[in-house]
Amino acid sequence: MFLTRSEYDRGVSTFSPEGRLFQVEYAIEAIKLGSTAIGIATSEGVILGVEKRATSVLLESSSIEKIVEIDRHLGAAMSGLTADARTMIDHARVETQNHALHFNEPIKVESVTQAVCDLALRFGEGADGEERVMSRPFGVALLIAGIDENGPQLYHADPSGTFYRYDAKAIGSGSEGAQAELQNEYHSSLTLAEAEQLVLKTLKQVMEEKLDAKNVQLASVTKEQKFRIYTDDEMKVVVERLEGSEVQTAMS
Amino acid sequence: MFLTRSEYDRGVSTFSPEGRLFQVEYAIEAIKLGSTAIGIATSEGVILGVEKRATSVLLESSSIEKIVEIDRHLGAAMSGLTADARTMIDHARVETQNHALHFNEPIKVESVTQAVCDLALRFGEGADGEERVMSRPFGVALLIAGIDENGPQLYHADPSGTFYRYDAKAIGSGSEGAQAELQNEYHSSLTLAEAEQLVLKTLKQVMEEKLDAKNVQLASVTKEQKFRIYTDDEMKVVVERLEGSEVQTAMS
Amino acid sequence: MFLTRSEYDRGVSTFSPEGRLFQVEYAIEAIKLGSTAIGIATSEGVILGVEKRATSVLLESSSIEKIVEIDRHLGAAMSGLTADARTMIDHARVETQNHALHFNEPIKVESVTQAVCDLALRFGEGADGEERVMSRPFGVALLIAGIDENGPQLYHADPSGTFYRYDAKAIGSGSEGAQAELQNEYHSSLTLAEAEQLVLKTLKQVMEEKLDAKNVQLASVTKEQKFRIYTDDEMKVVVERLEGSEVQTAMS
Amino acid sequence: MFLTRSEYDRGVSTFSPEGRLFQVEYAIEAIKLGSTAIGIATSEGVILGVEKRATSVLLESSSIEKIVEIDRHLGAAMSGLTADARTMIDHARVETQNHALHFNEPIKVESVTQAVCDLALRFGEGADGEERVMSRPFGVALLIAGIDENGPQLYHADPSGTFYRYDAKAIGSGSEGAQAELQNEYHSSLTLAEAEQLVLKTLKQVMEEKLDAKNVQLASVTKEQKFRIYTDDEMKVVVERLEGSEVQTAMS
Amino acid sequence: MFLTRSEYDRGVSTFSPEGRLFQVEYAIEAIKLGSTAIGIATSEGVILGVEKRATSVLLESSSIEKIVEIDRHLGAAMSGLTADARTMIDHARVETQNHALHFNEPIKVESVTQAVCDLALRFGEGADGEERVMSRPFGVALLIAGIDENGPQLYHADPSGTFYRYDAKAIGSGSEGAQAELQNEYHSSLTLAEAEQLVLKTLKQVMEEKLDAKNVQLASVTKEQKFRIYTDDEMKVVVERLEGSEVQTAMS
Amino acid sequence: MFLTRSEYDRGVSTFSPEGRLFQVEYAIEAIKLGSTAIGIATSEGVILGVEKRATSVLLESSSIEKIVEIDRHLGAAMSGLTADARTMIDHARVETQNHALHFNEPIKVESVTQAVCDLALRFGEGADGEERVMSRPFGVALLIAGIDENGPQLYHADPSGTFYRYDAKAIGSGSEGAQAELQNEYHSSLTLAEAEQLVLKTLKQVMEEKLDAKNVQLASVTKEQKFRIYTDDEMKVVVERLEGSEVQTAMS
Amino acid sequence: MFLTRSEYDRGVSTFSPEGRLFQVEYAIEAIKLGSTAIGIATSEGVILGVEKRATSVLLESSSIEKIVEIDRHLGAAMSGLTADARTMIDHARVETQNHALHFNEPIKVESVTQAVCDLALRFGEGADGEERVMSRPFGVALLIAGIDENGPQLYHADPSGTFYRYDAKAIGSGSEGAQAELQNEYHSSLTLAEAEQLVLKTLKQVMEEKLDAKNVQLASVTKEQKFRIYTDDEMKVVVERLEGSEVQTAMS
Repeated sequence: MFLTRSEYDRGVSTFSPEGRLFQVEYAIEAIKLGSTAIGIATSEGVILGVEKRATSVLLESSSIEKIVEIDRHLGAAMSGLTADARTMIDHARVETQNHALHFNEPIKVESVTQAVCDLALRFGEGADGEERVMSRPFGVALLIAGIDENGPQLYHADPSGTFYRYDAKAIGSGSEGAQAELQNEYHSSLTLAEAEQLVLKTLKQVMEEKLDAKNVQLASVTKEQKFRIYTDDEMKVVVERLEGSEVQTAMS
Repeated sequence: MFLTRSEYDRGVSTFSPEGRLFQVEYAIEAIKLGSTAIGIATSEGVILGVEKRATSVLLESSSIEKIVEIDRHLGAAMSGLTADARTMIDHARVETQNHALHFNEPIKVESVTQAVCDLALRFGEGADGEERVMSRPFGVALLIAGIDENGPQLYHADPSGTFYRYDAKAIGSGSEGAQAELQNEYHSSLTLAEAEQLVLKTLKQVMEEKLDAKNVQLASVTKEQKFRIYTDDEMKVVVERLEGSEVQTAMS
Repeated sequence: MFLTRSEYDRGVSTFSPEGRLFQVEYAIEAIKLGSTAIGIATSEGVILGVEKRATSVLLESSSIEKIVEIDRHLGAAMSGLTADARTMIDHARVETQNHALHFNEPIKVESVTQAVCDLALRFGEGADGEERVMSRPFGVALLIAGIDENGPQLYHADPSGTFYRYDAKAIGSGSEGAQAELQNEYHSSLTLAEAEQLVLKTLKQVMEEKLDAKNVQLASVTKEQKFRIYTDDEMKVVVERLEGSEVQTAMS
Repeated sequence: MFLTRSEYDRGVSTFSPEGRLFQVEYAIEAIKLGSTAIGIATSEGVILGVEKRATSVLLESSSIEKIVEIDRHLGAAMSGLTADARTMIDHARVETQNHALHFNEPIKVESVTQAVCDLALRFGEGADGEERVMSRPFGVALLIAGIDENGPQLYHADPSGTFYRYDAKAIGSGSEGAQAELQNEYHSSLTLAEAEQLVLKTLKQVMEEKLDAKNVQLASVTKEQKFRIYTDDEMKVVVERLEGSEVQTAMS
Repeated sequence: MFLTRSEYDRGVSTFSPEGRLFQVEYAIEAIKLGSTAIGIATSEGVILGVEKRATSVLLESSSIEKIVEIDRHLGAAMSGLTADARTMIDHARVETQNHALHFNEPIKVESVTQAVCDLALRFGEGADGEERVMSRPFGVALLIAGIDENGPQLYHADPSGTFYRYDAKAIGSGSEGAQAELQNEYHSSLTLAEAEQLVLKTLKQVMEEKLDAKNVQLASVTKEQKFRIYTDDEMKVVVERLEGSEVQTAMS
Repeated sequence: MFLTRSEYDRGVSTFSPEGRLFQVEYAIEAIKLGSTAIGIATSEGVILGVEKRATSVLLESSSIEKIVEIDRHLGAAMSGLTADARTMIDHARVETQNHALHFNEPIKVESVTQAVCDLALRFGEGADGEERVMSRPFGVALLIAGIDENGPQLYHADPSGTFYRYDAKAIGSGSEGAQAELQNEYHSSLTLAEAEQLVLKTLKQVMEEKLDAKNVQLASVTKEQKFRIYTDDEMKVVVERLEGSEVQTAMS
Repeated sequence: MFLTRSEYDRGVSTFSPEGRLFQVEYAIEAIKLGSTAIGIATSEGVILGVEKRATSVLLESSSIEKIVEIDRHLGAAMSGLTADARTMIDHARVETQNHALHFNEPIKVESVTQAVCDLALRFGEGADGEERVMSRPFGVALLIAGIDENGPQLYHADPSGTFYRYDAKAIGSGSEGAQAELQNEYHSSLTLAEAEQLVLKTLKQVMEEKLDAKNVQLASVTKEQKFRIYTDDEMKVVVERLEGSEVQTAMS
């Protein structure tokens, strides 16, 4: 199947006869090689959760930063080439600061997502003096969580520069199974605590390693606490709660 | 058939021996992969309607923006690579603002369409310091609806930079069937309400999913209300009206 | 035959062993895919006529602009990629305005033609900061009609940057048959009215659709009226006159 | 034979293993596709003559400009891609004006020829901000005729940037036969009138069409009249004279 | 296996259909050709150790600089193309100086690592006027050791621009065996002296040559002494100590 | 033999696996297609001699400039692509003038040769704003003759940017035979007159045409007369002298 | 063996699947085609020696400059493409002058070597406005000899931008045999005179021609005399001494 495709799929900006941009599609494949990330939006706030794949026991899992803050009210989880994500996050931070400076109000979640997607779309354009532009599509997807006048929101941005808002969304190598689980379990009246447990439970199902307080990471955005990444102690609490609830489920 | 073609069709700016620009033709194919969009111009105003394909029930269909405002009197529906459309729409908005600033009058519908098409034509030129230029043709088509001193008007702009004015036009994956339907049903004395129903009825015929108030979106441009996107409540009303009329038709 | 050719014909600026520039020749082929355009120069003025191919009955034929004004005393008819023509016409208009500004007299017909041809020759040169340059040959030919101190004149400009003055010239898909007809019928004492009828008669012969007042367009350049595109009413009159004369011819 | 060659001959600036630059050689082939041009230098002045190939009787042969003025004392005849020649001639005119401005004396014939050849050599260099540079060799040859303190002179400049002075030189599709004829007939004591007749006679032999006053053009450079292109009346006189002399020759 | 891969793996910025960037993966292979480098972080400080492969006895082993100082509190060991490493180290030094200048405090270990990784990610972007950018991925990996307010830390940075913090990490040709050894022997209460011996012992196991005081090099970062490279005398002492301990081990 | 070579020899700046730069070697082949040029250095001065190949009797052999002045004390003979040589000579003249201006003394022969060779080395570098740079190696070799404080000197510069000083050197199509002859006949006590005759005699042996006063050209550099090209009369004298001496030799 | 390699080895900046940069490796091959150069460092100073291959007896061997001065205390011997070496040496001289100017002390031998290697690493980067950058690796290696506060030192710099300090090092076509000889004969207490003889003896063994005072060249760097190239008379003395010692050796 790749045979006929091969003449069109190496050009970064070349359409195939069917109107497809293969390099963008391949970049989306890069995300399927990444660790799983999940986001769930509730009326109380948004929960982000990621798997941290440590290739060695000597690797400090705290240095695997798959969830990052963009602004006080904004954060993102990533899957794919994490080095690429840094460029996107830096761009998001600059846009966010500029907005705050010019308009004296925090940027909307949708606006920061669009800014990141506009950058994603610009690969292959060549430098234009102001800003560095990638010579290939970004090989990373983001789940952007934030809170603004429209309440808590979760956006998904992919290498094609497309973005949509989701109630709950999974990306990365376990995304297929995770998304199916989310579809079954999600309902619009989930509490933040329930979302926390649903993210963990879903990650547990799709991770190859046994889930523990070190190989997953959660973060939340709420009106009260804005964006914050869970501390190690908080992670221990929620992981224990998950195990407790599973025991309960198993017993019941 | 692609065999002989293959030596000419990857160069973004290369003519084939028959004088064809294959990359532009392939970009037009990208639009046939997109969701269907329809526009109908009447003497009272223009109706735009689009299908919203939600790949997941957890995707907020309100974040699928296939119809956007350009200016108070101007809007557009799109089909194809929606990320590409943002660049075109941004360009249209800048041109529109510049016109208003310099001439103290709203831009004509034809002028904004031409501005978008001039940008479309410029792919592959390389940056020129002022403006970003795509390294490939845009993979999106626009239906631009607006009202000016010449009354309500509907324009179609495609990746080749060509534009024409239409009474009624369909683009996207269902365009062939939809255009045939429009050709049968359109007449120059259609009221805006009839156009509204014709857009919905035509979308319904070509959509794979069952049409409901969430997976389609309408917008209108009229002298009184300028450009406006229908609210969720309005969408429910018009979709119910469609169902009612169909029952009537079925009964009669 | 294309086999041996294929190694030379994709380079935009590569000579074949026989000294040919295939990409320019292929661009000329693009014109043969276009609708037919005809120009006739008489001592009273120049008539331009074009076929308008409407792909749909819902397309507003008035939005098919194949004849455009360059200046009060100058206009052009085109065949081929009409989006490309806009760039050439814009360049012609700028040159025309600059000339008027610097020399306080209208530009000569030959001068504006040469300016357009100089632009056509520059494809593939890369941007030079001042002006945008196409990365491929223009896929369009122009018939430039105008009047200056040397009287009414008709020029033909093609993608190779070559231009010649003609008494009568046809371009586009029907050009071969049309040119033969013009060669038979043209004589130097044609009146403007006779030229008008000859343009229409010739278009009628080469068009696939039945000629009517909506699918053709005429324009004229005369000393008195300068350049003007016929109104819909004028088009009806001349088309009826053509039909009348043909009935007469048939009866006689 | 082109098989082994084909790997080297598409690079604009690539030597073949034998030290040849094929693209330059192919550009020289482009000249062999052009109409014939002839120049003869005498002690009284230089005569330039060209064939004008009109592809249609409706083409105004006066618009086929194959002989052009560079300065009052300088002109050129061309063969090959005439659009390319315009760039060379423009460059020659600028150099000529600059020289006159800076040195307050007319430029020498050799100097203007060298300036044109330096430009020819620069293809493929990329733009340098000041001047536009072709991305391929020029596909045209020039016969540059002029008069300076060294008397009347004729130079030949080709796409390789090489130039030599000639007593008599033919270029274009008929150049082989014409050059042989010139070699037979030229002698250093030719009068200008004899040169005029020799140019015409030689053109007549190599042209496919019957030579007449419209399909050839002469020009001369003399001390008294500087560079001038023959008027239509003058052309008639010299063509009639040629016919007369041939009748005489035939009768004698 | 390389057959199917070969069409995607030469483009510096091209994704394969599986979403892989082969040129980056191949650059990582370059590191496996390099000499082994090892780092161990303890609560007292970090030890770096490298193998020095002298290809000739006449080569001054002191000129093999595989461990370098970045700042007083920061150093790095490298494996792979050492010439590439100089560019990275220069960048790290500039960032470090800039930080100290602007913020009047030493840069954090993580920040300098990220700065180096951001540079690594930028290959293939083209020059942007300010800074030189590699046209290919860096073929080198760094172990960056430093001390800041968070205590002693060891980071690993690779050609993909990815970085993680490690307790102990080996890179280069012997990395596989060395990492396994480190995993067995490392524990969080290692003293600096024990780490010193563990680095040497591990290098000894993976080196082809017999380890002596000239073909290995150690450095340390501690709170008291900051970053320092061991002198020749210190190297002799620690190598002798290693031999002593091994004799003891062998005897026991 | 070219088969295995062919993959490396088209890249202007690509090494073959054996460390060769084929494009430079092919440029050197271009010189073997050129006319022969010879230089001989004596203690009295340097003699340069060239063959002039006139392809037509109508070509003014005086316009074949294969020997040119660089400065009053410096000249050069060339073989290969003479248009390329003009760029080198122009560069040499600028360097020479600059030196004289800055240091108030004539440039040394070696210095001007090195300046020319530095330019030769720079092909393929791209423009740098100041100076035009060839996109391929120069296809020409120079024999640079001059006189400075070190006495009369002869240098040879080739497309690789390499230069050496010679007592006597031949370049061009007849160089092999000519160099052998020079090796036999040259001795360090040659007078200028003897060198003159040796150059002519050697050219005579390797030229296809019969040598006469029009198809060869000599020049000399001496302390008294600096650089000068022989006049037509002087050429006649030296050619007659050659014939006389040969008669003598034949008779003796 | 080159078959599988061939797809990766022409890209100037492309890694092979094994992490190799073939173009750099091929540039290193270019050095093996060059004449042999040798350096020996002693406590008294450094001796550099090169073979001069004169392709013709008419070539002035003094113009073969394979040893050059960089500064009063610094010199270099080269092997490979000598034209490339000029660029490196020019860079070294500029760096040396700049250092002296800014720091008012002579540059260290290691620093000037690193400066040259940094330049070597930058090929393929494109011009950056300040300095010219090669589009391929340098095809030359340098032996840089100098003296500074650390005493006499010898460095070897190769096309990969790697440099090491050596006690004794040979490069060029005879380097393998010469290095083996040096390894046998070198000891740390060599006097300068002994090093002189060892360089000559080693060159003699690997040269194809019989060594004499004209086809080799020596230079030395010492504290007293700084860098100096041996005069012709000194060369005669040392060559005679070599012959004498060999006779002695043969007799003994």
